[in-house]
Amino acid sequence: MPAALPDDGNNGPLALIAGGGAIPIAVAEAVQRSGRRVVLFPVRGWADPEAVEKYPHHWIAVVQAGKFAKHARAEGCRDVILLGAAVRPPFWSLRLDWMTLRLLPAVYRSYRGGDDHLLSGIARIFEQHGFRIVGAHEVAPGILIPAGKIGRFEPSPRDRSDIARGLGLLRAIGPFDVGQAAVVANNQVLMVEGIDGTDSMLARIAELRERGRIPTAQGVGVLVKAPKPGQDRRLDMPAIGPKTVEAAARAGLAGIAVVAGSTIIAEPAEVARAADAAGLFVHGIDERAE
Amino acid sequence: MPAALPDDGNNGPLALIAGGGAIPIAVAEAVQRSGRRVVLFPVRGWADPEAVEKYPHHWIAVVQAGKFAKHARAEGCRDVILLGAAVRPPFWSLRLDWMTLRLLPAVYRSYRGGDDHLLSGIARIFEQHGFRIVGAHEVAPGILIPAGKIGRFEPSPRDRSDIARGLGLLRAIGPFDVGQAAVVANNQVLMVEGIDGTDSMLARIAELRERGRIPTAQGVGVLVKAPKPGQDRRLDMPAIGPKTVEAAARAGLAGIAVVAGSTIIAEPAEVARAADAAGLFVHGIDERAE
Repeated sequence: MPAALPDDGNNGPLALIAGGGAIPIAVAEAVQRSGRRVVLFPVRGWADPEAVEKYPHHWIAVVQAGKFAKHARAEGCRDVILLGAAVRPPFWSLRLDWMTLRLLPAVYRSYRGGDDHLLSGIARIFEQHGFRIVGAHEVAPGILIPAGKIGRFEPSPRDRSDIARGLGLLRAIGPFDVGQAAVVANNQVLMVEGIDGTDSMLARIAELRERGRIPTAQGVGVLVKAPKPGQDRRLDMPAIGPKTVEAAARAGLAGIAVVAGSTIIAEPAEVARAADAAGLFVHGIDERAE
Repeated sequence: MPAALPDDGNNGPLALIAGGGAIPIAVAEAVQRSGRRVVLFPVRGWADPEAVEKYPHHWIAVVQAGKFAKHARAEGCRDVILLGAAVRPPFWSLRLDWMTLRLLPAVYRSYRGGDDHLLSGIARIFEQHGFRIVGAHEVAPGILIPAGKIGRFEPSPRDRSDIARGLGLLRAIGPFDVGQAAVVANNQVLMVEGIDGTDSMLARIAELRERGRIPTAQGVGVLVKAPKPGQDRRLDMPAIGPKTVEAAARAGLAGIAVVAGSTIIAEPAEVARAADAAGLFVHGIDERAE
């Protein structure tokens, strides 16, 4: 990777490597609104082609370090943010460019283990080449969910007990670098997020409910999301959006609880509207209070 | 529930409440082979009607305590064993008999929480009425998996590291009364068992693999099963059978590892044959050594 430009404080253009979903675009919008130039590097197959059209952008393939670095340098970017859903491809299917080939041993070492491990390995490589990885909380703090309710509804005492159990479980599995989410209903853990992610977990709950395999009634149960303990907040911060609300509604849950200040919310107005329409609560957990 | 008969040592007939799958029948066979009479109480909708035909049996519905107690008493049974897959029905769908209605508050209290909580609540009710809940390890120790390999194949050093990570994870989530199984591949936790059970988790892995969503190659990854720490071994002991091997093969795993002496193996010869045919290892973990 060619080296990045010298440090220019926090005001140079921001390189945003964009995976799938609404989050990268929501962050790009917030950064642009703050007056900072943003250049998208949408990842082919993951990012939405229509959504990136509104921004200066350069398409890249997964792990095309050389192509990214060349364009990021030409655009004057030193700060880099990685956002959005990433389907981790089988290692042998990666279309590596020449630059990445030289980085291969380091990438491969990062590939063995969980997502955190992979991401921190990739962040290290960027930093060795003079880029600086930043987090959404640094460049667009307004995109983090605040404490309290989004929309009209609030968790009941039973929901709060489910939230506490879910948070405890997520803390316990943190060291194993597994999912950031779980569904708890009436004090019972129904499901822990696997490699397929939150939406897929909710779809499975919906399917099990249809087959009469969920013991709790419709409208009982909470999707709880929390960052892993010790997780680098610049990387892989939990996120929700209107689609999460729709998936939770289809799963027949009472609501969604995420850690305030540590969770990205895409399209908050849409989230509130979808939650109110479905009768779900969306709750920002104040970790200091709960 | 009418009271059970007086204690007759360990040799009176055994009441076996049979859920789904091959385990209840395998245990019934082992108990009968040991010279003890066994009376099946197959649960309607769960147990296999053809398999129970070979044994004296009385069909019951879920939570028909009165019917169970009447027949168990008439058959002279004091010891009771509960075995097999149980789809926990929605509470409001239970067809309670008169006896169970009186036990309802206690059953309902047990219903709130995880499986362990439900089962220990049910065990307590049996015991309050003079029955004694026994475990497979007491009545048919030969049905527990021994340490070492079943079949030809053995775990590689990488598989052993996946097994260690899986065991650590299962210990960490034990207090949350969630799944007894996880899939770990190349040091990454792919999935934790949810309310839908082991076979469903393996089916999801197979499906994700088909869609190119599993980062590790075919033939990498281990299904690890372990009893929850502090779990009452008389209740809900982990179990594997030929179907587990087939599901693990479809999921593209290297093998299956379970805790020796604490896991029921149904049809061990069939398990070995299926594992050898699919090129999978089935490994009994010696917890004192590993």
